[in-house]
Amino acid sequence: MATAGLKTNGATDTRQRIIDVAVSLFTRHSFAGTSLQMIADEMGFTKAAVYHHFHTREQLLGAVVEPLFGQVRPIIEQAEAQRSRNARAEHMLTGYADLAVRHRALMSVLAGDPGVIDMLRAQGDFGDLINRQIKLFADLDPGPGGLVKAAVVLAGIAGAALPSSVLDLDDDALRQHFIEAGRRTLGLRTPRRPSRLAAPNAPAPR
Amino acid sequence: MATAGLKTNGATDTRQRIIDVAVSLFTRHSFAGTSLQMIADEMGFTKAAVYHHFHTREQLLGAVVEPLFGQVRPIIEQAEAQRSRNARAEHMLTGYADLAVRHRALMSVLAGDPGVIDMLRAQGDFGDLINRQIKLFADLDPGPGGLVKAAVVLAGIAGAALPSSVLDLDDDALRQHFIEAGRRTLGLRTPRRPSRLAAPNAPAPR
Repeated sequence: MATAGLKTNGATDTRQRIIDVAVSLFTRHSFAGTSLQMIADEMGFTKAAVYHHFHTREQLLGAVVEPLFGQVRPIIEQAEAQRSRNARAEHMLTGYADLAVRHRALMSVLAGDPGVIDMLRAQGDFGDLINRQIKLFADLDPGPGGLVKAAVVLAGIAGAALPSSVLDLDDDALRQHFIEAGRRTLGLRTPRRPSRLAAPNAPAPR
Repeated sequence: MATAGLKTNGATDTRQRIIDVAVSLFTRHSFAGTSLQMIADEMGFTKAAVYHHFHTREQLLGAVVEPLFGQVRPIIEQAEAQRSRNARAEHMLTGYADLAVRHRALMSVLAGDPGVIDMLRAQGDFGDLINRQIKLFADLDPGPGGLVKAAVVLAGIAGAALPSSVLDLDDDALRQHFIEAGRRTLGLRTPRRPSRLAAPNAPAPR
């Protein structure tokens, strides 16, 4: 019986499994094309079992994007604390490329679906986080050209990270190529020191 | 009576209006989240009036993307006919940036929605056209780095062209900034001659 999983794995595991299945269905059918019923069917659950954890698709979407938001926020804050425009953009770029590679399916849901973006902008500080990321890149070249380059880098890395993309690279190689493509677009030189991303929990320098 | 428009405007106009409303709803709700009924409601038509022109959403999607496919195909063919790798990539880039600017809403539907991309890949020569565009860019730098840069440029320009994007530029300025961002990412120098895009119907040089 499928719902036996609810008991043996515990409620937290079930919640996480619903989130994982939701991401997978969102990337195949888009957010608007995925119902709680489809998620239940995919898991062999009743709709009531899914409803026990998430009452609406909006609530589920919030839970799906929460880990990504939780990771991008400190990257933005650490980037903003760097001393030079170049260091700020470099820190944001390496952090963003890392997230894109580690959350390929989720980034494609976020980047591509206009319904998702509108809902997230309405829901919380998503719009603010996007604008701060754009500013960190666009400050390298004040004016509309800098804004366009920033938008191309953010959309390009997220879009190219799509699991169905032509790219069949391991994570480390893909991350490094994203960083190099972003540096070229933004006109950033390769820094002499290795990126601080290797120790993401270290406090930002003051 | 709303259906009176069917007669006074003629069937061709109605067909085009359905397509325009469909693009607008796709960009707001994604393809999967838009039904023929929603299109009928938006136009004040009965579902039967929409059904008279399009029997399925798939058929409607085909009609929606047809003009874009019709325009990208000759750009790819002209680009492939150029003599050098740089000229091939430059021609593809200027043509792609031009299409992205002229079809901002439609490009966002195409670029962002995984359901749309999967359906189009299954339907016709869409996958082949995408692969030929990638090759025109990736040939500049054989290897995985070139593929990544090609994918970032294609996804980045399409994604940044989103009507809801931060960019509030007129079409000419946006196109020029897209071309410059693409050249930087791909490592293309600004060509001495103006792009041949000014005369898109001229035969490609042999």
